Amino acid sequence: MRFTRTSAGKERKRIMIVVLKPNATKEMVQRMARRVEEMGLKAHVIVGTERTVIAAIGEKRDAERETLESCDEVEKVVPILAPYKVASTETKEEPTVVRTRELVIGGGHIGVIAGPCSVESEEQIMTSAIQVKEAGAAGLRGGAFKPRTSPYSFQGLKEEGLKLLAAARKATGLAVVTEVMTPHHVDLVGKYADVLQIGARNMQNYHLLQAVGETDLPILLKRGPSATIDEFLLAAEYILDQGNTQVVLCERGVRTFEAHTRFSLPLATVPYLQARTHLPIAVDPSHGTGIAALVPSMCKAAIAAGADGLLLEVHPDPSKAVSDGAQSITPAVFAATMADCRKIAEVLGRPM
Amino acid sequence: MRFTRTSAGKERKRIMIVVLKPNATKEMVQRMARRVEEMGLKAHVIVGTERTVIAAIGEKRDAERETLESCDEVEKVVPILAPYKVASTETKEEPTVVRTRELVIGGGHIGVIAGPCSVESEEQIMTSAIQVKEAGAAGLRGGAFKPRTSPYSFQGLKEEGLKLLAAARKATGLAVVTEVMTPHHVDLVGKYADVLQIGARNMQNYHLLQAVGETDLPILLKRGPSATIDEFLLAAEYILDQGNTQVVLCERGVRTFEAHTRFSLPLATVPYLQARTHLPIAVDPSHGTGIAALVPSMCKAAIAAGADGLLLEVHPDPSKAVSDGAQSITPAVFAATMADCRKIAEVLGRPM
Amino acid sequence: MRFTRTSAGKERKRIMIVVLKPNATKEMVQRMARRVEEMGLKAHVIVGTERTVIAAIGEKRDAERETLESCDEVEKVVPILAPYKVASTETKEEPTVVRTRELVIGGGHIGVIAGPCSVESEEQIMTSAIQVKEAGAAGLRGGAFKPRTSPYSFQGLKEEGLKLLAAARKATGLAVVTEVMTPHHVDLVGKYADVLQIGARNMQNYHLLQAVGETDLPILLKRGPSATIDEFLLAAEYILDQGNTQVVLCERGVRTFEAHTRFSLPLATVPYLQARTHLPIAVDPSHGTGIAALVPSMCKAAIAAGADGLLLEVHPDPSKAVSDGAQSITPAVFAATMADCRKIAEVLGRPM
Amino acid sequence: MRFTRTSAGKERKRIMIVVLKPNATKEMVQRMARRVEEMGLKAHVIVGTERTVIAAIGEKRDAERETLESCDEVEKVVPILAPYKVASTETKEEPTVVRTRELVIGGGHIGVIAGPCSVESEEQIMTSAIQVKEAGAAGLRGGAFKPRTSPYSFQGLKEEGLKLLAAARKATGLAVVTEVMTPHHVDLVGKYADVLQIGARNMQNYHLLQAVGETDLPILLKRGPSATIDEFLLAAEYILDQGNTQVVLCERGVRTFEAHTRFSLPLATVPYLQARTHLPIAVDPSHGTGIAALVPSMCKAAIAAGADGLLLEVHPDPSKAVSDGAQSITPAVFAATMADCRKIAEVLGRPM
Repeated sequence: MRFTRTSAGKERKRIMIVVLKPNATKEMVQRMARRVEEMGLKAHVIVGTERTVIAAIGEKRDAERETLESCDEVEKVVPILAPYKVASTETKEEPTVVRTRELVIGGGHIGVIAGPCSVESEEQIMTSAIQVKEAGAAGLRGGAFKPRTSPYSFQGLKEEGLKLLAAARKATGLAVVTEVMTPHHVDLVGKYADVLQIGARNMQNYHLLQAVGETDLPILLKRGPSATIDEFLLAAEYILDQGNTQVVLCERGVRTFEAHTRFSLPLATVPYLQARTHLPIAVDPSHGTGIAALVPSMCKAAIAAGADGLLLEVHPDPSKAVSDGAQSITPAVFAATMADCRKIAEVLGRPM
Repeated sequence: MRFTRTSAGKERKRIMIVVLKPNATKEMVQRMARRVEEMGLKAHVIVGTERTVIAAIGEKRDAERETLESCDEVEKVVPILAPYKVASTETKEEPTVVRTRELVIGGGHIGVIAGPCSVESEEQIMTSAIQVKEAGAAGLRGGAFKPRTSPYSFQGLKEEGLKLLAAARKATGLAVVTEVMTPHHVDLVGKYADVLQIGARNMQNYHLLQAVGETDLPILLKRGPSATIDEFLLAAEYILDQGNTQVVLCERGVRTFEAHTRFSLPLATVPYLQARTHLPIAVDPSHGTGIAALVPSMCKAAIAAGADGLLLEVHPDPSKAVSDGAQSITPAVFAATMADCRKIAEVLGRPM
Repeated sequence: MRFTRTSAGKERKRIMIVVLKPNATKEMVQRMARRVEEMGLKAHVIVGTERTVIAAIGEKRDAERETLESCDEVEKVVPILAPYKVASTETKEEPTVVRTRELVIGGGHIGVIAGPCSVESEEQIMTSAIQVKEAGAAGLRGGAFKPRTSPYSFQGLKEEGLKLLAAARKATGLAVVTEVMTPHHVDLVGKYADVLQIGARNMQNYHLLQAVGETDLPILLKRGPSATIDEFLLAAEYILDQGNTQVVLCERGVRTFEAHTRFSLPLATVPYLQARTHLPIAVDPSHGTGIAALVPSMCKAAIAAGADGLLLEVHPDPSKAVSDGAQSITPAVFAATMADCRKIAEVLGRPM
Repeated sequence: MRFTRTSAGKERKRIMIVVLKPNATKEMVQRMARRVEEMGLKAHVIVGTERTVIAAIGEKRDAERETLESCDEVEKVVPILAPYKVASTETKEEPTVVRTRELVIGGGHIGVIAGPCSVESEEQIMTSAIQVKEAGAAGLRGGAFKPRTSPYSFQGLKEEGLKLLAAARKATGLAVVTEVMTPHHVDLVGKYADVLQIGARNMQNYHLLQAVGETDLPILLKRGPSATIDEFLLAAEYILDQGNTQVVLCERGVRTFEAHTRFSLPLATVPYLQARTHLPIAVDPSHGTGIAALVPSMCKAAIAAGADGLLLEVHPDPSKAVSDGAQSITPAVFAATMADCRKIAEVLGRPM
């Protein structure tokens, strides 16, 4: 047993494993080790019969990885640490609690945000707000600026929609959660919203992430449909890096070969993320399945899996919705689902 | 509004939509319509400006689809009915209940099958059996013939392992659930097992499906990691078609771009399948995640989603397991998880 | 054989198939048929034994799909036409040729765009430009504004980088292709660029698509890593809809379970798209594989598959690149690859 | 710079990196290091600030990986070597050439195998054989035992089909390539076939792999639709491990979210595998796309990518094929495609 100690004083030392190619000669190994040291890292060479690896130890996080990987002598580089940091439980252990009006998500609190896909009319959003409030929601969702796959689809009521959301808030006290699609709308949407939502298509729209990071509003960040967990947390990191710490992560399903549902909803994301980040984790079973009949089961499953929040599409009459009707549930189904979720949360010791 | 009635007397009529290419001439349309009729189907032509479609109506299920799709005039063929039938709720509405010893799965009953990945020794399997029984399992899992990705990995104790399983059953009364990998082992494994398991890698091993279909033992059929729901149900159909109606379907995770878990576990499979088939649906969170720390959450989520059963890897000392140690939970974690699952099942009105 | 004619005069009629649930009663069928007619569509009901379908015929494209799908009586709605139109060969048959300086892509012309991932320094971009020009490229790529997964990675030289690109163009005559990440940069980047690139992460950043659609510069639109073909063409449609017809589509690999390459590069996209759209199709084997050693083979394969263009990362010294070094090829490898590609193009009758 | 030498005499030493959890205490580190040494491995501890890793050095390949991964102290284990060995270029550098009759695949030779999906009749297979031979194929494909997704689909002519294949071989000299689905058919199929094909659904049917490994016939092993490269090579390893070295690997497309093609065909597999294994690599563009119109482009792309062989569905009249008609090309298209492929192969210096 041998020990290589890398720490000295207060410096933080990280480890990266550089795997050399099978045919690497002694000279190549020494050249690479020198190169690693020129980068300001400490090199520790471990020689096996079929492979030699260099443990590169130093301050930086991942910066040199690509450079090393492109060297002729190198087969691959294995980073030992995850690339995100502010979002990590390594940086902050206690859970972040996101709070606005009566909506509280995280740290044992379960927050439910419900409402229609799009704001369509005063009557529609007001009815929706009253009904979801009654059934126990603390947040009201509703799109005013709508990202639509086709340019020929309804694009939202825009500022008019924001005003209707604000009116519904006034009537019910619900926190308004609505999407912002582009940096120059952040101020406008921020005037009306309690929580700014970043949609799945914009998870890696970095200028937008930075723009909402500069506000002091809570952010609901939806996972991109093919984002890895590291990419998801690094997107959050763009927001956190601007000083905004009120970020809720939302799993909304990933794109897989499965075609019977709109997306595949991997609920294991919930406990997996909870072990890695202090940010609260919400689940969106509406987009996660795309089928109203599956939404109640997936709400219950999300709560049982430990989710800190739910984001749900509820419409007074889904068959008349201008968008996402197929995945919207009725207020009655929502109320019954909430009742079941509350029972599950209670027996698991996390009353909602 | 126009009506085309296709039924006459007792015949069952099915509909398939044949979409012709944009440039299809009147002659091509007529030729295709004749072709459809030569197949014994009734053709109903609907002419649009940009496309013409032919609704082909008849007895057969999907048989002509590929033939029609390969015709030059045809852009695509859209089948209206699912290709499975015996497994379908259209054929039999009441849920199938699979029963053997004290293990009951389906029709409101939740059955739990637990135990180690591989049978390793008499002590190991006996301890496992006693511990999982105590915590509430009714079935004992344990591999005697092991399908392993590498030929250099442990391949199981084979018949010796089967004997140890039988001894554990004798001591505890648990139903033995174990995998059979090839048709010529069906008799041997069937001598010892209460339930024959078909592993994910063999979901489309049709000779094996037919061989177990000829037995009168219940079958636990695991979903292949990239099987669609139709392929999964058609695999069950191979078993049912031999006359064996005691089939449990098991969702065990699908292969996606997600690499932080071994597979992605799409729990929406549970309610989706329950609406389409009368067969009971179990969930395997051990393979579905590959990480022991995620298993308890996913068990609870599966029960909340309405699963009829659980299949779980539990090992007296996971760090000493010869296989799948990383995804096996300890008996203590299993007991705590079962307690939570029972609470959830109870508040949802399905006591287990 | 029966015919339903839907066209009369000059109207364009489209067909959508509404599949009713198995248990739909006669009353439900009639209610749905009325509903379809209330939407201004013509309803044609086809009654099978197990399912009834309604062929809904009318002017609109997909608008009513979601509404119909959310009706209780409806199992699913099958659109018969693709949702894009301006990009479609149904709208314009002759291939679009995108031209700027000596770069010509489409209509039999193969255009090659090469250069480093990021602009790093005057010397680096000038050397790159001269070397790729010499080997036969007509376009110079190089990122000045860089979308990076991590906020801690190099974010580009910004306007300084754009100036260096312009200088390299002046020296070589190459057309400058560079990414624009957010609407308010369109003017700035447009001052220096010959082609505006929309990166994969921004394929569904609709405000950005509209902003570049308002310029008169050619656009290189990269496919999102989990975008379907319809989503890809609808993203192009957002640009075309603003009146900009100079759009090159670029396949750059999709996210799948494969982890040995950065993405999976499905070259069948090339002939598939060529049959559906008049826009030219380029391929990016650098991102498509993420591994420099695989790039030459994939360039040759792309040309053999019929690609109208290539987008490639070439760096004077990949091991010193600040980004994407692992997937950048050297100028020497690029020259050899170009020579092979020219030979393939020539024997296939498409000299480049 | 420090060196740890692990080799002594003739032993082969391999390296595995054990990453400990962030909170691992000094005692935990020492306990793990002892555990690694008890396994007969040499432990080298490298202490960073945020993580400690243990380089475990020893003889065995991957055996202890799972055991270590399940220890409480361990976050993950990173193997440095691939788990396959006999198939690896590390074991044998010169390419394996698979030869039977006039079919030669590998080592610079490109072998083409063509014919219908299923053997349907004497006339059909005889016509097919003559036509594909004329166009340059050296192997005749044709299924006699057919694995079909549905039990209600045509299952093949069985032994009668094998006899027809043998007759076609007699008439043309083509090598017969046909699928074997279950171990107890190996003798029967082996009586008639020149090459035994293992279908994608059976890639991990280990008893079947071992059974064909015991024959002295060449094996064509198709990649499973969601198999990783390691799993693919380990499946080959099951065959090689029985002493049969004549194995052709066949890429036939993987299952992804793309639905416009039957599978996604990642041609980068070809150069990637060629760098890792000495076994020849064939490509099947028929299953890889599922659409006849895409097959010629993908054949040309596969040859340009460096494939050692092609496996293709060609049918005298695809619209009358009993299976896979939609992806079968006509003899005329096949002949034209072969002519193009020959030109590409020639200009790339690998005449076929």
